[in-house]
Amino acid sequence: MGVTQQLFLGIDGGGTKCKVRLEDHNGELLGEGLSGPANTAQNPAQAIESITDASLKALSKAALPENALSRCCAVMGLAGANIPAYRLPIDEWQHPFAELKLMSDLHIACVGAHGGYEGAILITGTGSSAVALIDGEITTLGGHGFPLGDKASGAWLGWRALSTALECMDGLLPGSALVDGIYSALGCNSTSDIVAKALHFKPREYAGLAPLVLELYAHNDPYAKAIVEEAVNYVVRVLHCLEHMRPNRISMIGGLAKPYINILPDDVKRLLKSPLCSPEFGAVALAKQYFKR
Amino acid sequence: MGVTQQLFLGIDGGGTKCKVRLEDHNGELLGEGLSGPANTAQNPAQAIESITDASLKALSKAALPENALSRCCAVMGLAGANIPAYRLPIDEWQHPFAELKLMSDLHIACVGAHGGYEGAILITGTGSSAVALIDGEITTLGGHGFPLGDKASGAWLGWRALSTALECMDGLLPGSALVDGIYSALGCNSTSDIVAKALHFKPREYAGLAPLVLELYAHNDPYAKAIVEEAVNYVVRVLHCLEHMRPNRISMIGGLAKPYINILPDDVKRLLKSPLCSPEFGAVALAKQYFKR
Repeated sequence: MGVTQQLFLGIDGGGTKCKVRLEDHNGELLGEGLSGPANTAQNPAQAIESITDASLKALSKAALPENALSRCCAVMGLAGANIPAYRLPIDEWQHPFAELKLMSDLHIACVGAHGGYEGAILITGTGSSAVALIDGEITTLGGHGFPLGDKASGAWLGWRALSTALECMDGLLPGSALVDGIYSALGCNSTSDIVAKALHFKPREYAGLAPLVLELYAHNDPYAKAIVEEAVNYVVRVLHCLEHMRPNRISMIGGLAKPYINILPDDVKRLLKSPLCSPEFGAVALAKQYFKR
Repeated sequence: MGVTQQLFLGIDGGGTKCKVRLEDHNGELLGEGLSGPANTAQNPAQAIESITDASLKALSKAALPENALSRCCAVMGLAGANIPAYRLPIDEWQHPFAELKLMSDLHIACVGAHGGYEGAILITGTGSSAVALIDGEITTLGGHGFPLGDKASGAWLGWRALSTALECMDGLLPGSALVDGIYSALGCNSTSDIVAKALHFKPREYAGLAPLVLELYAHNDPYAKAIVEEAVNYVVRVLHCLEHMRPNRISMIGGLAKPYINILPDDVKRLLKSPLCSPEFGAVALAKQYFKR
């Protein structure tokens, strides 16, 4: 491999970790790197350190020196890539790469899920959103953030459960196993404790209650059933909407994908293909597409 | 009226204005005062200025000197009176009154709505909550803040409308007049404009969309109908729950009380009595109750 040959980096910059995939010009995997949070809006210095750190780890796995960064053409996926506060720290960074292109986290996840090609995905994790990538055009569905959107997300499930449990605790709805489940999940023993605790809840904390909702759903709790059914109804509508756009493939990804797939009606399940690769795989595929000489 | 006779002040300290009612020891209205915001957590100095200002205005209407404040026994109603960040600035204030007792805004509103006596109220304004005051015991229902609780509030109506409109805009639900209504109410012309704007929405901004929801409800828009019916269902459950506690009287107050009452089922409407007096009336009634020698 000549010293001047191009290298390709796919970077998945997330709020809790940063993952990097390094490939050579033949598309061979040379190494991978994992580091800490890359939340560019909340902590730009830490984000830049995480990106650099994960990239250097990938180079080191490939026995390449640090200065090989200057041969790397990188695509980085970032939540909020279309929001100035998120992308500016990266746009303004005197980065060490040959090239660095910023794209949405959904875009790289979609290309990853379809093995480097176009398609459509529905992500249901802490948040929820969908994208379709067709003939170079990307269309986003849903998302919009909690509590306005992100229906069927973990945050949405947890929030709906907590909101319903509070109505039970107030005596406005008959009680169910949901109430005890919420008390023990939050380690609280009064309504006011719960309200005080939830005052500071972010989507992640609400999403922490999603496993409880799914467990109660499995045990036929009426409230969990109503909540999960509303979520599944939304998932079905999103998948039909994606199908309507005629993408090559449709996949569901994210922590809640599997539980939802298990309970989807068969005709909807049939629309789905297994996700193939990771977001950083998608990012490196896009890097080759954009930068390969 | 002797110089040493007690005076009674009822203070309704709200986030946008502070209202004061001054009565003598015979329960005669001597004067009223109105001033600016009294948000004790956000701006304690301004809140204290507003309280003092409104009190002095009431004294001045009664041709009483400033130093008559020291003869005033005051009860002040405050949203968040049970939350340290809200009550501490008032607890620590070297106030000019003979006495100052802090109570929840719901408590004084309830006593006001029932002309100085016990009863129960459901408030539906920007937020929503209910209280029952029976034999000196106060029970709170609902509230819990948006988006966890405050169902049927203006914020809840507006948020549900916006959330539904976004699903229409995404093509996940068929469109309705709601979509155009939201566009024109927010002065936006794209989904991303709306999402960017709503990112910073507080309950007050969501509540600004409530009149649109009610107008569309009156015109049989299917989404507005579903949203308002869910709200009315909640209102009915709260009122039945209050009825169950057997209070002397039940009233609905707040900006949305009238529109809801208009569409309540007759058997529920029959549970309600007209609210009689203002929160500051309730506060001064409580001041006499606590402090009258």
